[in-house]
Amino acid sequence: MKQSIQFKTFEKFVKRLQNKICNALEDLDENKFIEDRWLRPEGGGGITRVMQLKSPFVATSIFEKAAVNFSTVTGPIIPGMTKAVEMEGDEFSACGCSLIIHPTLPKIPTTHMNIRYFETNAGQSWYGGGIDLTPFFPYPDDFAFFHRTLAKACNDAIPNSYEPFKTWCDEYFTIKHRNEMRGIGGVFFDYLDGQDKANFKLTKSVGNAFLRAYLPIVEKRSNESHTNRDMEFMRIRRGRYIEFNLVYDRGTLFGLKSNARAESILCSMPPDATFMYDWTPQMNSPHEKMMQYYQPKNWLTFNL
Amino acid sequence: MKQSIQFKTFEKFVKRLQNKICNALEDLDENKFIEDRWLRPEGGGGITRVMQLKSPFVATSIFEKAAVNFSTVTGPIIPGMTKAVEMEGDEFSACGCSLIIHPTLPKIPTTHMNIRYFETNAGQSWYGGGIDLTPFFPYPDDFAFFHRTLAKACNDAIPNSYEPFKTWCDEYFTIKHRNEMRGIGGVFFDYLDGQDKANFKLTKSVGNAFLRAYLPIVEKRSNESHTNRDMEFMRIRRGRYIEFNLVYDRGTLFGLKSNARAESILCSMPPDATFMYDWTPQMNSPHEKMMQYYQPKNWLTFNL
Repeated sequence: MKQSIQFKTFEKFVKRLQNKICNALEDLDENKFIEDRWLRPEGGGGITRVMQLKSPFVATSIFEKAAVNFSTVTGPIIPGMTKAVEMEGDEFSACGCSLIIHPTLPKIPTTHMNIRYFETNAGQSWYGGGIDLTPFFPYPDDFAFFHRTLAKACNDAIPNSYEPFKTWCDEYFTIKHRNEMRGIGGVFFDYLDGQDKANFKLTKSVGNAFLRAYLPIVEKRSNESHTNRDMEFMRIRRGRYIEFNLVYDRGTLFGLKSNARAESILCSMPPDATFMYDWTPQMNSPHEKMMQYYQPKNWLTFNL
Repeated sequence: MKQSIQFKTFEKFVKRLQNKICNALEDLDENKFIEDRWLRPEGGGGITRVMQLKSPFVATSIFEKAAVNFSTVTGPIIPGMTKAVEMEGDEFSACGCSLIIHPTLPKIPTTHMNIRYFETNAGQSWYGGGIDLTPFFPYPDDFAFFHRTLAKACNDAIPNSYEPFKTWCDEYFTIKHRNEMRGIGGVFFDYLDGQDKANFKLTKSVGNAFLRAYLPIVEKRSNESHTNRDMEFMRIRRGRYIEFNLVYDRGTLFGLKSNARAESILCSMPPDATFMYDWTPQMNSPHEKMMQYYQPKNWLTFNL
């Protein structure tokens, strides 16, 4: 299908964003991204960029596994693509940038970002995206800083938009069988009208806010020491991350079941994880404290 | 609902089987099972027995994480319980024994066994179950031994039954998005008519064959040395095991989404796992060789 001007504009934006983010992460780390360019048989393709330690037995980088992906795909609408909206037309185009960063050490949080634009050949179009944080140590000042940065990015583009997108994020990233969130949330939005320029502005604003919201936390926490218990807790939480991604995340499941390239979808998986039967944190430990933060909280009024 | 005599007979059998298997595993290991008894609000309950290392940072046991569970549950039929058969009536009873064993070191394979009986208050009833093996090192003589032991157990109860159940197992335990099996298969069967005594005999025969098929391999391989690469390969395959269980395994997904106790369902998860982007085995390594065995093979005619 012929893509709209809007599509082309967004495509250029996310491609530049991918470069900007990769450069900023490489500046902090001695490791480098490798790049895989792939084509989709039905149309379009993408650029997968991954930075990872070559072996789980050495750990010298800040980022143990980071993937920053750009994709622009087009083709016939696939049954099951969405249950949330009525899709008209029979072809779609979609483009976006998505990233996931799993740092090596437990004082630096894992994070995830995704922004995307979707249109059909019947003239429908939507923006979607979000950013969320999965920390492993109770540093509430970091969490408040993260949420406040996102709140400014959202509200500057669309007044009062942070609050509903923050609630949406809390709900979406919940591991339902455990009644806990995978992290401390952030913002999430989907099916925002593609004809409305404010939604383009919002989506760009969220994409541009990513480095501003995340890098200061990385820099602040990268020299902190940690214990074996901190490592164990991170690995337990990485296990919960996997539970969320493989049981609930729509993008992951749809991708795996629609015959897309499994490696490009599963690059979001943590480098490792631990699963213990009936694990509970030690009493009065920072990890017990951290568990409380995996429930929705108002971070704008949070008393530090 | 009132349970049939057959149900009670099977229940007694699986309870004894749980004890027999736990005792045999404890005899080999210096670790012990812990036991959790649980009740299901809608009716019935179970006995979860787990043996696990207390921390991923020590490794002295043969079995890093083993769960041998008995359950007998009853209550209203839950929507989505099965898509494979038309269920009559509005109540069900089910009982079974299921186990999963993740050894600490990579020369000993992971294994899984499950046998179950299911009946409705409309008089329908079925047997189901199976045993499969997930090895991490190319010891084809072990794999042939395992399959031949299962073939005898099946064919002794029902002539020529091994072959279709072996094929069913190959299909069921395939990680579709990777086009590979999670291990080297075994046998799998479901919806076998509960009124037919031969099916009771078969299900018992498979349950009783478990120790005979698995323990000789454990004993044979428990003094083998291993390399860091062998450990890495095991952890990569444990990652694939998780992909299968959380994306395709009907029991796991149904359990998680029907509000059952998450810990009792997820005790099947490996103690740890590694996920690397675009991982491939080293050329000419035993791991490259092993990858070939994750495709269906005829183990009865396999030329050792």
